[in-house]
Amino acid sequence: MIDNAIATTGTGVVAGLGYAPALWVKPAPILPHSTDAVVAEEAREAEIARWKAAVETVAARLAARAAAATGAAAEVLEATAALAADKGLQRTTVKLIAAGSTAEAGTVTAIAAFIAKFEKLGGLMAERATDLGDIRNRVISALLGLPEPGVPTPLTPIILLAEDLAPADTATLDPALIHGIATRLGGPTSHTAIIARQLGIPCVVAAADLADIPDGTLVLIDGAAGTVAVGADPAEAEAKVLTDAARRKAVQSWQGPGRTKDGTAVEILANVQDGAGARAAAQFPAQGVGLFRTELCFLSAQHEPSVAEQASIYGEVLAAFPGQKVVIRTLDAGSDKPVPFVAHPDEENPALGVRGIRLGNADQGLLERQLDAVALAAEQQGVTAAKVMAPMVATIDEARNFAAACRSRKLSPGLMVEVPSVALLADAFLAEVDFMSIGTNDLTQYTMAADRMAPSLAALTDPWQPAVLHLIRLAAMAGASAQKPVGVCGEAAADPLLACILVGLGLTSLSMAPNAVAAVGLQLESVTLEQCQRAAVAVLRCTTARAARATARELLS
Amino acid sequence: MIDNAIATTGTGVVAGLGYAPALWVKPAPILPHSTDAVVAEEAREAEIARWKAAVETVAARLAARAAAATGAAAEVLEATAALAADKGLQRTTVKLIAAGSTAEAGTVTAIAAFIAKFEKLGGLMAERATDLGDIRNRVISALLGLPEPGVPTPLTPIILLAEDLAPADTATLDPALIHGIATRLGGPTSHTAIIARQLGIPCVVAAADLADIPDGTLVLIDGAAGTVAVGADPAEAEAKVLTDAARRKAVQSWQGPGRTKDGTAVEILANVQDGAGARAAAQFPAQGVGLFRTELCFLSAQHEPSVAEQASIYGEVLAAFPGQKVVIRTLDAGSDKPVPFVAHPDEENPALGVRGIRLGNADQGLLERQLDAVALAAEQQGVTAAKVMAPMVATIDEARNFAAACRSRKLSPGLMVEVPSVALLADAFLAEVDFMSIGTNDLTQYTMAADRMAPSLAALTDPWQPAVLHLIRLAAMAGASAQKPVGVCGEAAADPLLACILVGLGLTSLSMAPNAVAAVGLQLESVTLEQCQRAAVAVLRCTTARAARATARELLS
Repeated sequence: MIDNAIATTGTGVVAGLGYAPALWVKPAPILPHSTDAVVAEEAREAEIARWKAAVETVAARLAARAAAATGAAAEVLEATAALAADKGLQRTTVKLIAAGSTAEAGTVTAIAAFIAKFEKLGGLMAERATDLGDIRNRVISALLGLPEPGVPTPLTPIILLAEDLAPADTATLDPALIHGIATRLGGPTSHTAIIARQLGIPCVVAAADLADIPDGTLVLIDGAAGTVAVGADPAEAEAKVLTDAARRKAVQSWQGPGRTKDGTAVEILANVQDGAGARAAAQFPAQGVGLFRTELCFLSAQHEPSVAEQASIYGEVLAAFPGQKVVIRTLDAGSDKPVPFVAHPDEENPALGVRGIRLGNADQGLLERQLDAVALAAEQQGVTAAKVMAPMVATIDEARNFAAACRSRKLSPGLMVEVPSVALLADAFLAEVDFMSIGTNDLTQYTMAADRMAPSLAALTDPWQPAVLHLIRLAAMAGASAQKPVGVCGEAAADPLLACILVGLGLTSLSMAPNAVAAVGLQLESVTLEQCQRAAVAVLRCTTARAARATARELLS
Repeated sequence: MIDNAIATTGTGVVAGLGYAPALWVKPAPILPHSTDAVVAEEAREAEIARWKAAVETVAARLAARAAAATGAAAEVLEATAALAADKGLQRTTVKLIAAGSTAEAGTVTAIAAFIAKFEKLGGLMAERATDLGDIRNRVISALLGLPEPGVPTPLTPIILLAEDLAPADTATLDPALIHGIATRLGGPTSHTAIIARQLGIPCVVAAADLADIPDGTLVLIDGAAGTVAVGADPAEAEAKVLTDAARRKAVQSWQGPGRTKDGTAVEILANVQDGAGARAAAQFPAQGVGLFRTELCFLSAQHEPSVAEQASIYGEVLAAFPGQKVVIRTLDAGSDKPVPFVAHPDEENPALGVRGIRLGNADQGLLERQLDAVALAAEQQGVTAAKVMAPMVATIDEARNFAAACRSRKLSPGLMVEVPSVALLADAFLAEVDFMSIGTNDLTQYTMAADRMAPSLAALTDPWQPAVLHLIRLAAMAGASAQKPVGVCGEAAADPLLACILVGLGLTSLSMAPNAVAAVGLQLESVTLEQCQRAAVAVLRCTTARAARATARELLS
């Protein structure tokens, strides 16, 4: 092995440095071959009981971990525990064992069928396939009397290496001992990434050559650069880690408000999805809500809530940030977020289909009632000219109609910039409304013509793609020329380095997951507006996402 | 009714004027209510026979019409005749009648089930639902002894009005008597539009208020403007129609080559999909092939053809245009064009998925072998530096790799501009290759984030959308600055008015369906380059597709 060499480079998903010996996640049990061995009829009752005991053990362990966890970790663990105890899965397995399968073979066969079914459904359901594989391994290990497969429980600090982590693996990780995580598979939206982000553990995913690193190797992981290095000088590495730890501590104590080193104000706002989320976000140093995704309140609502019911939900979010900015986005239902009470036609390409503002073509009343509810909530909370923005606007006509519907209710209209056409004609669109907010996830998806949910296209759906930055620049320039606020409310805003570029491009606000607020705020305070502007100019000259990221790091770190 | 008033405006899909009395398509029979009436057991054999006779009559009539028709019309009629005689449909219906249904009720129930199935499949399959409804109406009419529903067979010229036309309606229309077609529903890609285009009958679809025009009203239809007017002065209207007929005759005698009134050369090329298509295209005044869609040769190929087999197919197209430009596009498989020998994963959004050049991520050899075949065909046909272009390129890395693979085979590399990122960074992309060709259909789909196949989003997927024209301008400017050819090979090039705007934007070639070549060539000869440029500047100032089209018409007609 070469001294101080980058062993592998992946996608950095949680910034931070970690330096410790590598330890691989314990492998899954060897699965029994599908076999024709038939359990004697008189032994099948006992076999079923043996299987049930194993499943109960696994479900109980998962539930116990869920209870010990909090937030998103608890939710994914609860979901996995529920999946382990799923009645349909139980019925299928018991049937197989009752027909003569061994408990092991029955488990493998039944779960394989469920995995196939989920994978066929594609998208988010396909991601559950990993969870099912995890449950299968745990049940087989329990049946074979083996220790639980998965994450080791170390006594001293380690860097955890794995092919990919399942929710059950990641949810009870102890940040005091797990100083970094690197996986060979996964992407920025995988479970690994989500939970590592929540726990603040430096994390690199999709590190192709990770398998070359054996257990016990001293590893320096850099979650910002996306690198896993071996053979670093221990004293140097430890000094770097200490500096980084100090930085992370500084992040934790950052209180806002958002501004550059030279004092240029930049609003740093939170993305929320309901009243509870808004109250939680208010605990972070966010200056308001830049994106309230109303559709996420209604993902399980069978009937459209009345105007009064809606107003009470929206009012909760307004109340969580009294006297501060709150931007309410109207229903962005459709595509990957179907809402039960909205008729969604079957579509070949839902992401290019009838979603967001386009739902109004079929039911204009839906938008009208939502705006009535926002107006009512604003009145009840004493908010004047409450800010409302429309998702998926693509034409001036749509923008004009939306703006008129808002203004007639004394609401202040805005637009999401997520369809490329809006960025291209930003001046004309901005003439119709009071503000715009760039949804970088969708804007990137359309600009690169690549599904943001497809793991195999993750390199294309990178917000550092220069074409996307060019469109953002067009929108920012239009805002400057019209003297109207233009911000960003997509994932891009949560990347501290990219946040500086966005400010350099001329954006006036950044809205992000609440737990990203402090890191972005701190990074912004470390650079001047001019530095951001110079870096933005340099980045715009790059022709690849790779070069753009490297250029920004060089100029801003 | 107001004198000389526009009664309704829709989407003009075939240019030309028609003036004649309106005649509505005969309504479908009143469908029997789903009923519990049970046919006595002893009468069921006879009922099945009665049903079979009706279906045979309908299928025979459709087959006869197919035989009388040619080209696309024959194909759609054959498909509909085959659908009428579909074994699955027959089994379902016979089963229902055998269980006691009347022939009429059995037909309605069976076809409703098939329609539901097809609609659930969505996309192109859902479009067959119209055909099934058409078959159902014909069978019910035959059972009830009523005349065939659908298109009347007039003795004097008429303008045909309808809700929408099924293939069986449109395929045997006689252009000598049907002087225009207007439908209340449908879109630019509906059967109505396709067949009207083939027959050269002026046609307007999606004309919302068409129902207000009763049978016998003298109607002036303008297939370019998309208007249906009533109350026109007969003498004036007839003069206009005569002028238009002369124009259409001039189109037929246009011989090329493409140039503006002041002599600026513009290559007018044909889009083809195989050797037979190329030989047919050579009968039109096209100056070469601007787009050879190789994937369409292989839609039913179960195994990848060998390099020699592929070379022979590509060679046929080269041979059809000896010494002329032929641009071969590598496999654009995936999305709506799955190719059996290419592994296409199930995708949530195939149009944003692994298609075109992205297939190389899974199987780089596929592209390598295709380029080998193109090189072999070029050698065999004595073509040097044969032009090959890649579909769905989104990043510089993809462009660079493709260009290297071409150059190592002495092929001249080019790119499709269909992902917005390529237009946005056109200078950088053009530095990698020798030429670019804009696929307006996909470029529009992504720029507007609207599925080009979704009829309900047709207003969004209009190539006159100003944002799309802005992106085209960026690509054209990059071409001018690099002195490399940049053309258009999407539907937009086939619209004579839009073709002039494209030339005004600086494009150097237009490639289109062979039968559109002459109309575009003639229109281009009627205007100077400066007129095109002025019109392009004016159009770029518009903020809606509607205004863009109207501005171009005003300045160029």
